[in-house]
Amino acid sequence: MNTAVIDTVQANGRRYAKPKHPVVVVCVDGCEPDYVTQAIQAGVAPYLERMLAQGSSLIGDCVVPSFTNPNNVSIVTGVPPSVHGICGNYFYDVAADREVMMNDPEYLRAPTLLAAFADAGALVAAVTAKDKLRTMLGHGLKGICFSAEKADKATVGECGIDNVLELVGKPVPSVYSADLSEFVFAAGVRLMETRRPDLLYLSTTDYVQHKCAPGTPEANAFYAMMDGYLSQLDALGAVIGLTADHGMSPKTDAAGNPRVVYLQQELDAQLGAGSTRVILPITDPYVVHHGALGSFATIYVNAGATLEGVRSALTALPGVEVVLTREEAVQRFELAGDRIGDLVVVSDHLTVLGTSAARHDLSGLTVPLRSHGGISEQKVPLLFNRPLRNVEPGRRLRNFDVFDLALNHTAPSV
Amino acid sequence: MNTAVIDTVQANGRRYAKPKHPVVVVCVDGCEPDYVTQAIQAGVAPYLERMLAQGSSLIGDCVVPSFTNPNNVSIVTGVPPSVHGICGNYFYDVAADREVMMNDPEYLRAPTLLAAFADAGALVAAVTAKDKLRTMLGHGLKGICFSAEKADKATVGECGIDNVLELVGKPVPSVYSADLSEFVFAAGVRLMETRRPDLLYLSTTDYVQHKCAPGTPEANAFYAMMDGYLSQLDALGAVIGLTADHGMSPKTDAAGNPRVVYLQQELDAQLGAGSTRVILPITDPYVVHHGALGSFATIYVNAGATLEGVRSALTALPGVEVVLTREEAVQRFELAGDRIGDLVVVSDHLTVLGTSAARHDLSGLTVPLRSHGGISEQKVPLLFNRPLRNVEPGRRLRNFDVFDLALNHTAPSV
Repeated sequence: MNTAVIDTVQANGRRYAKPKHPVVVVCVDGCEPDYVTQAIQAGVAPYLERMLAQGSSLIGDCVVPSFTNPNNVSIVTGVPPSVHGICGNYFYDVAADREVMMNDPEYLRAPTLLAAFADAGALVAAVTAKDKLRTMLGHGLKGICFSAEKADKATVGECGIDNVLELVGKPVPSVYSADLSEFVFAAGVRLMETRRPDLLYLSTTDYVQHKCAPGTPEANAFYAMMDGYLSQLDALGAVIGLTADHGMSPKTDAAGNPRVVYLQQELDAQLGAGSTRVILPITDPYVVHHGALGSFATIYVNAGATLEGVRSALTALPGVEVVLTREEAVQRFELAGDRIGDLVVVSDHLTVLGTSAARHDLSGLTVPLRSHGGISEQKVPLLFNRPLRNVEPGRRLRNFDVFDLALNHTAPSV
Repeated sequence: MNTAVIDTVQANGRRYAKPKHPVVVVCVDGCEPDYVTQAIQAGVAPYLERMLAQGSSLIGDCVVPSFTNPNNVSIVTGVPPSVHGICGNYFYDVAADREVMMNDPEYLRAPTLLAAFADAGALVAAVTAKDKLRTMLGHGLKGICFSAEKADKATVGECGIDNVLELVGKPVPSVYSADLSEFVFAAGVRLMETRRPDLLYLSTTDYVQHKCAPGTPEANAFYAMMDGYLSQLDALGAVIGLTADHGMSPKTDAAGNPRVVYLQQELDAQLGAGSTRVILPITDPYVVHHGALGSFATIYVNAGATLEGVRSALTALPGVEVVLTREEAVQRFELAGDRIGDLVVVSDHLTVLGTSAARHDLSGLTVPLRSHGGISEQKVPLLFNRPLRNVEPGRRLRNFDVFDLALNHTAPSV
C-alpha cells in the first residue's frame, strides 16, 4: 500500500486532501433531485447527463430545518448546526430578548474549511447569489468572496476582488430573478478562466425553484443554463461536486391554494395570547417568493403554559407531521439547543407553518406556493463529475460531506 | 329545524343520503395533487380551475399502503382495510401457505356502498380501467360494472351491460396506455347521457403518472383530456367528487436511476436465507411500468430469526423511513392484522423496496421510475364541483370519505 505523505488541511475535526486540480463545489438552492432528472429527460441538460453517467450520482440528507443558512454554513464548515451554531435564517436571542437574523458571523461557532484552506496557502473563492450569505461564508477567509446581488460593490479590501461586473461581463441582476443565479455561475467560470482557484464555492438562489415545478419549461430553462456553465467548468479541468441546501415541495392543495397552519394564531386561541412565542427560522429579508412560509417552526413556551399542553395542541393540528422537544430535536437534527425553542414543529410535505395570517404578506405569491424547511425536503443530490472511491458502504451521506467527497474520494480523471 | 325524513342508505355503519342529482365519484389513480395544480397553471384544465374556484378543494389521507386495491376498496366501502380486509394487491395467505393476488371477492370482508345503494333501488354503475378491480368493486352489485380493459367482453349477465364499444364509440384500449383511462371517462359520459345513473364510480389507471412528472407535457395532456370529460359530466348536472387512490413520487436519484432497497437480499445476507419472507403488496399482473417496486413491504419472520433482530436490520438500511410491528401497523394504518406480516417497512419518498434484484424486471422502465406505496404518497386531492357544508372543523379527511362528502355534505347547485 502506498503510504506517501498526503498534504491535508484540517477543519472542525475533519481532514481534507489539498486538491491537485481545482475543485468547484456548487450548492444549487432548492434543488429537489427531480429538477435534474426532468431536465435530463427533457434533453436540455446534456452535460449533466454525461457527467452523471461518467461520474457519480448520489442522494444525501441535508440539515433540518431544510433552510438556506444552516445548510450553506454546514457545507462550508463540514459539520452540523450543533457545532457551527446556525440553526436557521432567523432566531430568538433569549439573552438579548429579541428576534434577530442569524446572518452575522458573530453567531458562527466554527471556522469554515474555506478559511482553513486559504490559511494553508490555497487560493479560495466563493460566490453567493444573495449578500446575506456572503459575510457568513466569507468569515475569516483570506481569499475572494462576493455576492451577485452586490457584485458592483465588491472591493479588494472587503471581498478580495473588485471590478466584478467587468470580469463577468454582466450587469447587477435583480435579487428576484433567475439571472441572480446565472451571475454566480458566470462569475465562477470567469474566475476559473482568469485566476484558477484551488477551491471555488458557488451558491445560488432558489427563486426559480420556489416558483416552478421540476420539468416545467421555466425550471428546465434554469437547469439548461446551469448545464452550460458546468460544462465550461468541466472543460477547464475542474473537479465538480454539486449538492443542494434543501429540496422543494408544492405547499398547496390541488387548486394551488397555500396550505398554511398559522401556529401563533392557533396557540393564542387555544392557550391565550402571550403563552407562546412562535419563531419561523425561514424568515429573511427576501420573502416575496415564499411569504416567510416554510415547514419548520420552533416554539418558546412562556409562563402560563406547559410544554405538554403546547405539545398536545400542536400535535393535534392537521398538517403537522411531528412535534419534538428541544432535546429530541437536538438529538435527531443535530441542532444547537440554545438556538431553538422549547419545541420544534415540522409540517407535512404539502403544508407550511406561519405565525398569524395578518403577519404574512401573500400578495407576492403570483404562482402556487412551493417551499421547504421540513423533513420532506431533506433529500438532496450529491453529484460529481468523477467516480467516487473508498466511500464506506452504508455511510449516511450528508450535503455537508460534499467537500470531503470531492477532495478525498474522487478518482483521478480518466 | 327541519326534521323532514331523509331517504338514506346504510353501509358499514355509515349513512349516506340518496342523491337528488346524479353523483359521480372519480378515483384518479396516482393523482398527486400537483398534477392538477400544474395542469391548471399551464392553462390546460379550464374546467378544473373553475370547478375548484366554485366548488371545494381539499386534501385527504389515503390508506397506507398507498396502493390501488386497498384504496379503491376503501372508497367503495367507506371504511379502512381493518374492516374490509384488503391490505394490498397481493398477500401471503398463511393458512394456505401461498402468496396470492388479493383481487378475488372472497377476500372482501365488507359489502360495498355501491351494492347497498343498488339494493335500495338506486341505479348504480362502475367503470374501472383494469379488469383486476372490476370483480372486487362490483361484488354483490346489482347494476352496471365493467372494465375498459375488457370492455368488449362485457355481458348483461356478468356486467349488467353489453355492446360497450358501441356505446362508447372507441376500440378496446391497450392496458398500458393513457387511452385506458380515457375510455373510462368516455364511458362515464355516455352512461350519464344514456342511462343517468344515480351513482357512478369511475376508476382510472396510473400509467401516465408512473411515467410523467406533474407539469410535464404528457401529464398535462392527460389532465387536459380529463378536464374535458369532467366538464361534460358537470354540464349533465352531476355532482362530482374526485379523489385518488394514492399520490406519486419520483423514486430515483438525480440521474434517474431507481433507488431500490432489495429487502430479501439484504435480510438473507444478514440473517440467512429462509429466515424471513418479504412480501411486496404492490405486486399485480401489470408491473411493466413500475417493476413491482413500491415503498411498502411486509415481512414474515420465520423460525431461526427474531422479530427484534429483523427489525434492527431493517431499520439500519438507508432509504427505510419506518419499521413497525404488526400491532403498530394495524393501529397506525388501520390494517387487518391477519393480512400483513410480522413487520411493516415503509421507505422514504425517493426509495422503493424490492425483494431480490434478480426477481425484478426493470427492462420496462424506459423513463425514470415513479412509484408509491409509502407515507410520502398518502396526501391526495378531495375535489368537488359544489361547496361543502357542515364538515366538522379539524376532521381528518380520508379519500374514502369521498362518497360521504359528495352525498351528505355538498350544497345544492347555485
